[in-house]
Amino acid sequence: MKPVTVTVGLGERAYDILIGPGLIARAGELVAERLPGVRAAVVTDANVAGIHLEPLRKALAGAGIESVPIVMPAGEKTKSFEHFHEVVDGVLGARLERRDVVVALGGGVIGDLTGFAAGVARRGMPFVQVPTSLLAQVDSSVGGKTGINSRHGKNLVGVFNQPKLVLADTDVLDTLPPREFRAGYAEVAKYGLIDRPDFFAWLEANWRDVFAGGPARVEAIAESCRAKAEVVARDEFETGDRALLNLGHTFGHALEGATAYDGARLVHGEGVAIGMALAHRFSARMNLASPDDARRVEAHLTAVGLPTRVADIPGEVPGADRLFEFITQDKKVSRGTLTFILTHGIGQAFIARDVPASEVRSFLAEQAGP
Amino acid sequence: MKPVTVTVGLGERAYDILIGPGLIARAGELVAERLPGVRAAVVTDANVAGIHLEPLRKALAGAGIESVPIVMPAGEKTKSFEHFHEVVDGVLGARLERRDVVVALGGGVIGDLTGFAAGVARRGMPFVQVPTSLLAQVDSSVGGKTGINSRHGKNLVGVFNQPKLVLADTDVLDTLPPREFRAGYAEVAKYGLIDRPDFFAWLEANWRDVFAGGPARVEAIAESCRAKAEVVARDEFETGDRALLNLGHTFGHALEGATAYDGARLVHGEGVAIGMALAHRFSARMNLASPDDARRVEAHLTAVGLPTRVADIPGEVPGADRLFEFITQDKKVSRGTLTFILTHGIGQAFIARDVPASEVRSFLAEQAGP
Repeated sequence: MKPVTVTVGLGERAYDILIGPGLIARAGELVAERLPGVRAAVVTDANVAGIHLEPLRKALAGAGIESVPIVMPAGEKTKSFEHFHEVVDGVLGARLERRDVVVALGGGVIGDLTGFAAGVARRGMPFVQVPTSLLAQVDSSVGGKTGINSRHGKNLVGVFNQPKLVLADTDVLDTLPPREFRAGYAEVAKYGLIDRPDFFAWLEANWRDVFAGGPARVEAIAESCRAKAEVVARDEFETGDRALLNLGHTFGHALEGATAYDGARLVHGEGVAIGMALAHRFSARMNLASPDDARRVEAHLTAVGLPTRVADIPGEVPGADRLFEFITQDKKVSRGTLTFILTHGIGQAFIARDVPASEVRSFLAEQAGP
Repeated sequence: MKPVTVTVGLGERAYDILIGPGLIARAGELVAERLPGVRAAVVTDANVAGIHLEPLRKALAGAGIESVPIVMPAGEKTKSFEHFHEVVDGVLGARLERRDVVVALGGGVIGDLTGFAAGVARRGMPFVQVPTSLLAQVDSSVGGKTGINSRHGKNLVGVFNQPKLVLADTDVLDTLPPREFRAGYAEVAKYGLIDRPDFFAWLEANWRDVFAGGPARVEAIAESCRAKAEVVARDEFETGDRALLNLGHTFGHALEGATAYDGARLVHGEGVAIGMALAHRFSARMNLASPDDARRVEAHLTAVGLPTRVADIPGEVPGADRLFEFITQDKKVSRGTLTFILTHGIGQAFIARDVPASEVRSFLAEQAGP
């Protein structure tokens, strides 16, 4: 099967996302035709390394690309200053030149960390994303946002750094735990909900095929990448429209914070799923959208096995007051109003700049208790 | 006296360098008219803080700009991962928004460190340079190269990040030790030697006025900034012509390395002075330029009190073999040749891409002993 190509149209910084099976095995030729004569550092985590590192290095070597592996611990904690320092030192210690390439092989954590390190080593080296989770393939590997967490919050330190190439090998998703695949799927559904009602309807009809693998999965990933690429091309540095991609994320981040980022209870995609359901319910409550749309969103997310309510999170979850604190930790409350991504219906999300804080609080009290 | 304005023509990223006396006292209005409604973090070092921090913060406050000071230790060691982490955390901890401003108040170390931190905090915040050394005013604060040192070498980690404004207050130079002023002057002379023969001749005639202060000093700084701005506008990311700015720097860095960056023996500008003299002597030896030009360069640098020979460095300096190692640590020797900035005469520097390594070695043996 020939891979699907989605081009991110950013002028001088334009690049291709290739989506399809068997791409890791072809990584050497695909990198070499775009970046001839380079050496490489491959940054990955200990889990991914066990499965995909040697196949990738072998593929690179087959095209004459010598590579140095840099293996980080798995997990969100790796998005730290310390590991950032370690990766940068690893790249410099490999004596790569400014024109050589840094390859990120892994999920969102490795992609974000590596993209940042590549953006600052020798004041910027080319980098290639080889995302190995569904979430990374449809979201974090596309669009150039890279970074790490700080003690003041998540993703607060980083650069905008577009890769030269993204290789989304759909075969690697077969080794994902089902829960992780589902969590990534929340972001796929998000693109339908933002501005692609037909895609959302297609997902409602075909999600089983997407989960099963094969052409429907490739198509779902490709359409997600097209959707993200369009937004990114319009607003690379997030001064406007790109904020639409945060649909479900304000509520989602608050829930992740309220559960102390304990992945056993709630992973990012699950937070986003509940957050999207909340955003649709809140939009209905504000008379911006029909309650039928909120019910349809909830029905689809539930069908695929994603949570949609605060009560779906196992264990105690703080009430409205604390959740509201988490929301305002991220956002400025100016004159008693907040900016949220709300919707007029499925595929009609918009940036609402004057959402009364009081409405958010009473909605949260209904949804999560006081 | 009205400040001189030099604009760095980089399209969307264009900015002004203002050069003249009394600019720190006017910093509030000058920042506010370009960045209305911001809050600020002011990054500086302990030495500079004692003299200029409160006047600057008072000036900012006078225009309604609230500021948070972040004070680093003075010295080159501050260009480290640890202090970078500290500055980034300080900026985030001050709860600045993405549109707020980070101000670098200090010499090259503070400017490089702060520009890098501002480039990554919240994935990039506006920053303003208030350079307080001659070197920073004519070189490091202009052009957007920012960064820190790594254990693998100097300036290997950073970003290209253009400031929104540079305020070169020429009054602050009155408090510089004469040796530091002279060292900065080496970079002023460099612009004449690269492609401004008339400026070099003007410096030969007027250097005493430049050292004394007043309009000649302002003019020398402004002309230096114009020269650098032109090169940067042609080649922002150093893929070509910008390398000309390294005239004298390959030999200079090797000498700095060979003296273990001991500022008591050799500071950067002194290394550059010797390096420029060596580059001219080497060009004459290669029959690229007249020996008269090398003598003229040496005469001028000597007149202002700068060193021009390896033997001018106090204490033992390693011989040609070790110096050559320092040169090749920075540069790739491909097929027995090296890239150097050489010259056809005063104001006629060029990028020489095929300099035989053997010629460099025998020249070094003549200049420094075996």
